Amino acid sequence: MAVAEKMNRFMEKSSWIRKMFEEGARLKKIHGEDKVFDFSLGNPNVPPPDIVGEKLLELLQRNDPGLHAYMPNAGHFSTRSAMSAYFCQEFCLSMAGEQVVVTCGAAGGLNIIFKALLDPGDEVLCPAPYFVEYGFYADNHGGVLKSVPAQEPDFNLDLERMEQEIGPRTKIVLINSPNNPTGQVYPEETIARLGEILKAKSSRFGHVIYLVSDEPYRKIVYDNCRVPCVFNHYANSLITSSYSKELSLPGERIGFVALSPSAQEGNKIIDALTLANRILGFVNAPSLMQRLVEQLQGVCVDIGLYKGKRDRLAAALSGFGYEVAVPRGAFYLFPKSPIPDDQEFVRMLQEENILCVPGSGFAGPGFFRIAYCVDDATIEGALPGFERAMKRCTGR
Amino acid sequence: MAVAEKMNRFMEKSSWIRKMFEEGARLKKIHGEDKVFDFSLGNPNVPPPDIVGEKLLELLQRNDPGLHAYMPNAGHFSTRSAMSAYFCQEFCLSMAGEQVVVTCGAAGGLNIIFKALLDPGDEVLCPAPYFVEYGFYADNHGGVLKSVPAQEPDFNLDLERMEQEIGPRTKIVLINSPNNPTGQVYPEETIARLGEILKAKSSRFGHVIYLVSDEPYRKIVYDNCRVPCVFNHYANSLITSSYSKELSLPGERIGFVALSPSAQEGNKIIDALTLANRILGFVNAPSLMQRLVEQLQGVCVDIGLYKGKRDRLAAALSGFGYEVAVPRGAFYLFPKSPIPDDQEFVRMLQEENILCVPGSGFAGPGFFRIAYCVDDATIEGALPGFERAMKRCTGR
Repeated sequence: MAVAEKMNRFMEKSSWIRKMFEEGARLKKIHGEDKVFDFSLGNPNVPPPDIVGEKLLELLQRNDPGLHAYMPNAGHFSTRSAMSAYFCQEFCLSMAGEQVVVTCGAAGGLNIIFKALLDPGDEVLCPAPYFVEYGFYADNHGGVLKSVPAQEPDFNLDLERMEQEIGPRTKIVLINSPNNPTGQVYPEETIARLGEILKAKSSRFGHVIYLVSDEPYRKIVYDNCRVPCVFNHYANSLITSSYSKELSLPGERIGFVALSPSAQEGNKIIDALTLANRILGFVNAPSLMQRLVEQLQGVCVDIGLYKGKRDRLAAALSGFGYEVAVPRGAFYLFPKSPIPDDQEFVRMLQEENILCVPGSGFAGPGFFRIAYCVDDATIEGALPGFERAMKRCTGR
Repeated sequence: MAVAEKMNRFMEKSSWIRKMFEEGARLKKIHGEDKVFDFSLGNPNVPPPDIVGEKLLELLQRNDPGLHAYMPNAGHFSTRSAMSAYFCQEFCLSMAGEQVVVTCGAAGGLNIIFKALLDPGDEVLCPAPYFVEYGFYADNHGGVLKSVPAQEPDFNLDLERMEQEIGPRTKIVLINSPNNPTGQVYPEETIARLGEILKAKSSRFGHVIYLVSDEPYRKIVYDNCRVPCVFNHYANSLITSSYSKELSLPGERIGFVALSPSAQEGNKIIDALTLANRILGFVNAPSLMQRLVEQLQGVCVDIGLYKGKRDRLAAALSGFGYEVAVPRGAFYLFPKSPIPDDQEFVRMLQEENILCVPGSGFAGPGFFRIAYCVDDATIEGALPGFERAMKRCTGR
């Protein structure tokens, strides 16, 4: 066989997702791009804030020596410092630039965390549904992803089940808030209680269990919601995030990992994250983008645009009879499929030229994901089809 | 233990390199930056060609929709096509954009190749001395790096030894031309013969052995030298390269993998490389830089500047009695250490405020590496120290 056996298996397993995308491409070809309503991808449609272009122009016009050169593997120290300073201000913390490693997005961030922390066979425990890449990321570094169903209907953490499932091989508990695909933001008291559980379990099993919070959507929140900072509730915790969503720069691969200033053996962990950044081939996060985000701490796209889309779509779908929680973060809705087989329902939506992802793709069968980071016209155009699909299910 | 056992071992092993850098930093603090002659890093000192800044400004001023957005994991198709078109023109080949995956530098390229191709325990065979990261890259994906000493004094491949060492577990033969640390460019006839050997060995062991050529320095060549294209000599071959050196953009992490159009199961390999790009957390190469290099195929920094540095330094060192091959590529010299212990000699150079890397760091003991991608003043300032260090060795 040409390719590695495991990669071959991965490719075969993911073939139904590919088939879905191919079907979408086929539909667009037949009916025209604007007649197909594509809610399948989390590719932000809101353009970056104007200041992104302005600051990039400024950087290029100034053209400081070394603008595109290598820097230490953890990133420009001024970038790391700007990130930690913003964190301190946002969360009333005290931490230094040394606690931050600049990464190629949050995906790069998770990979260096797993590379730095996981021994072969170590378990990463996360709530389901979850972002499907987590399984690959854990496996890349010899780890095993295990999941615990979240509570329904609001998809908050099921702390009791999580507590039961944390075992002697659990090295990392991974949460994602605001969540992809559910949009849920875990409340402060849930995080506080999770911190207590992890403290007790770490001491019971005689090794530190790390809490890793993946937060690429941390600024995409509505209704005065605020994502609580895990550092305030558990010492041995790490946050990874990116500027992909808050600055609409997903193609530029810029993010970070921050380690709680209270973590044990913190210097060693930062050294390991830095080494992982180097040897996994990232080497460093893209230099120009580091210089950019250094100046744009706290800047965010207009959340109002996403909120309008969420409200319009959630209200319309509820009106059609869909059961859908209105989440306070990210740009996803995760309604219940009107029939138990979510893959079948997604096929029915395709017949209406609507592209969504079945919940099964996120270990959340019985639901489907709508990524509403799309034009308003796409939303308006799709509504009649959503209504007809529901009628077909209930009208039988 | 906080970090993974393996990472802990890696950190301990690499501590002598760190000590060297710390010693360099200490010297710079005591004597001043300009009194310490740092030849330890391959960080190009020649600035990017002016057209890099001009094209970046143009891209930002035009600000096309989606400039910073996600694109398919293999990269913008127009970028892939521009890269393959340039390849075709350069090497009289016929290949399409589909044969190219845009990557986060050549380090990212090697990691996705190894992830795509290696099963656990598979061997990667390369000539020594070699770039020290290769061992980590192979290990990241369950592979094992094995090395075969190159010929002395010119560091060409020792094909006879390589032929002996290719065994049933060899999945990849990895070459690096122009070579880091030796600067050697393997001649066309060497590559042709290597292709024959790999063909015979593949058929003997009943599986394809891939030839991977790591060519980040392919444009940094002198004396009318041209790096031969492995695609012309072996069907199952891949090239990875970057724009780090030829456009002096190492901090921006932009490169590519190209697969020979004659490779068996080519589509499957490209799919696996694309999946590896995604799941290793690269997701895609930085978007803006893709748009940039798409327009700068064949553009290169002024090689004359590096050639001048090479000639000056090689001539002076020879004059002092150093044995040094004058390589036709990259920006490294790899002279013989005047005493057998290269680490000890590098310490002697430190006493002259000269920072170099011992050959042992590249599995090439008895030599030391000079990265001459530095200011002319650094070279001129270091020459008396190089002379004194030699005299101390020979005058005993």
